[in-house]
Amino acid sequence: MKVAFQGEPGAYSEQAVFNYFGQVETQPCESFDAVFDAVNSGQCESALIPIENSLAGSIHQNYDLLLRNNLFINGEYPLRVRHCLIVNPGVKLTDVKKAISHPQALGQCAGYLRTHGIKPEQVYDTAGSVKMLKESGERDVAAIASRRAAELYGMQILEEGIEDNPENYTRFLAISKTASIPEGEAKTSIVFTLKNVPGSLFKAMSVFALRDIDLTKIESRPLQGSPWEYLFYIDFIGSIHDEVSKRALDHLGEYAVMLRVLGSYKRFAPA
Amino acid sequence: MKVAFQGEPGAYSEQAVFNYFGQVETQPCESFDAVFDAVNSGQCESALIPIENSLAGSIHQNYDLLLRNNLFINGEYPLRVRHCLIVNPGVKLTDVKKAISHPQALGQCAGYLRTHGIKPEQVYDTAGSVKMLKESGERDVAAIASRRAAELYGMQILEEGIEDNPENYTRFLAISKTASIPEGEAKTSIVFTLKNVPGSLFKAMSVFALRDIDLTKIESRPLQGSPWEYLFYIDFIGSIHDEVSKRALDHLGEYAVMLRVLGSYKRFAPA
Repeated sequence: MKVAFQGEPGAYSEQAVFNYFGQVETQPCESFDAVFDAVNSGQCESALIPIENSLAGSIHQNYDLLLRNNLFINGEYPLRVRHCLIVNPGVKLTDVKKAISHPQALGQCAGYLRTHGIKPEQVYDTAGSVKMLKESGERDVAAIASRRAAELYGMQILEEGIEDNPENYTRFLAISKTASIPEGEAKTSIVFTLKNVPGSLFKAMSVFALRDIDLTKIESRPLQGSPWEYLFYIDFIGSIHDEVSKRALDHLGEYAVMLRVLGSYKRFAPA
Repeated sequence: MKVAFQGEPGAYSEQAVFNYFGQVETQPCESFDAVFDAVNSGQCESALIPIENSLAGSIHQNYDLLLRNNLFINGEYPLRVRHCLIVNPGVKLTDVKKAISHPQALGQCAGYLRTHGIKPEQVYDTAGSVKMLKESGERDVAAIASRRAAELYGMQILEEGIEDNPENYTRFLAISKTASIPEGEAKTSIVFTLKNVPGSLFKAMSVFALRDIDLTKIESRPLQGSPWEYLFYIDFIGSIHDEVSKRALDHLGEYAVMLRVLGSYKRFAPA
């Protein structure tokens, strides 16, 4: 089995692929478009895409790609983002004067770096910073990236989990050409737009509330070209194969201008 | 008047400051924390912070900082992000073989670059890429950044608006130590958490629907440390100085565990 992800080998996305799928072959892709193309063309059976981060928010681009492509969500995986301080073998923490990484990763470790008197320097990628450090062989520099990146390049981890805020999770979705019938507790992701009339969102939510269906996500997104129009993302507990969910979506269809079920899948349950 | 923003001189945030406030003095800050500190300490009277981007989503970090700091939202400004292809003076489009910029900007111009056979190369910052290009003097390289960055460094704009998706807006909020009473049509931003009981969000939304109050934004955000708990962001049309808004928030208080009004401010109206 071959699974596509966006980024370079050693990226957090690749780590999520291994955690979720086990030992599969991975296909690094330059962009999210290329990830979807890899599945559409049949080059990869599946892909794992980030859909939201607990600190940075939803990744609208991937919602857009889910709407444009005819692929289905088959599963979800929340990756706890644990940044590692990575050095060339034998280098000690007291030797490290500078840390290189992607600006977002540096920002998330700002407190740790300040405490240890380490100067941040921005490069374009987390996994790429480890590769650069290995090539330069510098002994007063550290890279900040995933455990996987350190292992891939045979580098040493001085400390793991150096992010200031431990509540740093990225939720990934597994996508493929075929819809699966989820076993166990299921979740369903939908996208819809509503007629622009007062109280329309309240009515849309009533279709779930009236049937005691729990929502785990709701988000409105303004459609900038069309003032007063919004896309809504909702995740709810249940499978589209359940009678109650079918009825709720049927009812929602009375208010929605566009309604698309992105997939029903097994809800992630921590081991 | 002095206004803080995150980024380097020439950043899109700085452009938003000038568009919104007019000709003021600006204070570049390394991080969003530093932006809030600049206002808290009195070094700056105001700051402009990005809160959501139409392609990339909400910037949760700034919601967190609004909750942690006792500052008020006084206004909003949606900046249309228009990427420019910037070169050293005299360089022609046919000379350009490579484009440098922040990965997000390069990604947003991927189609344009492909069409013109220009190879993207990632650097850590948009405005920084213009500075680097000026220093190197290279004549086969272009930078991708704001009009403001080109002007600041005396560089030439070959083409403006080269992003593939024109619906690229970043919404900024003006914040300061004092709450203002908005004139004209007002908007109010609130953050709250609910008791974890079925239908609680539906009840929360009823306080607005029952009073014909329009929502312009709703977003749930899971609190990862606390399973089943969510933060909700809502923007609605109206000022907290209106009787109907006061009653709605009073009613919402019956369901909310935590409720914070981040500010009432004049709704942005395009000229």
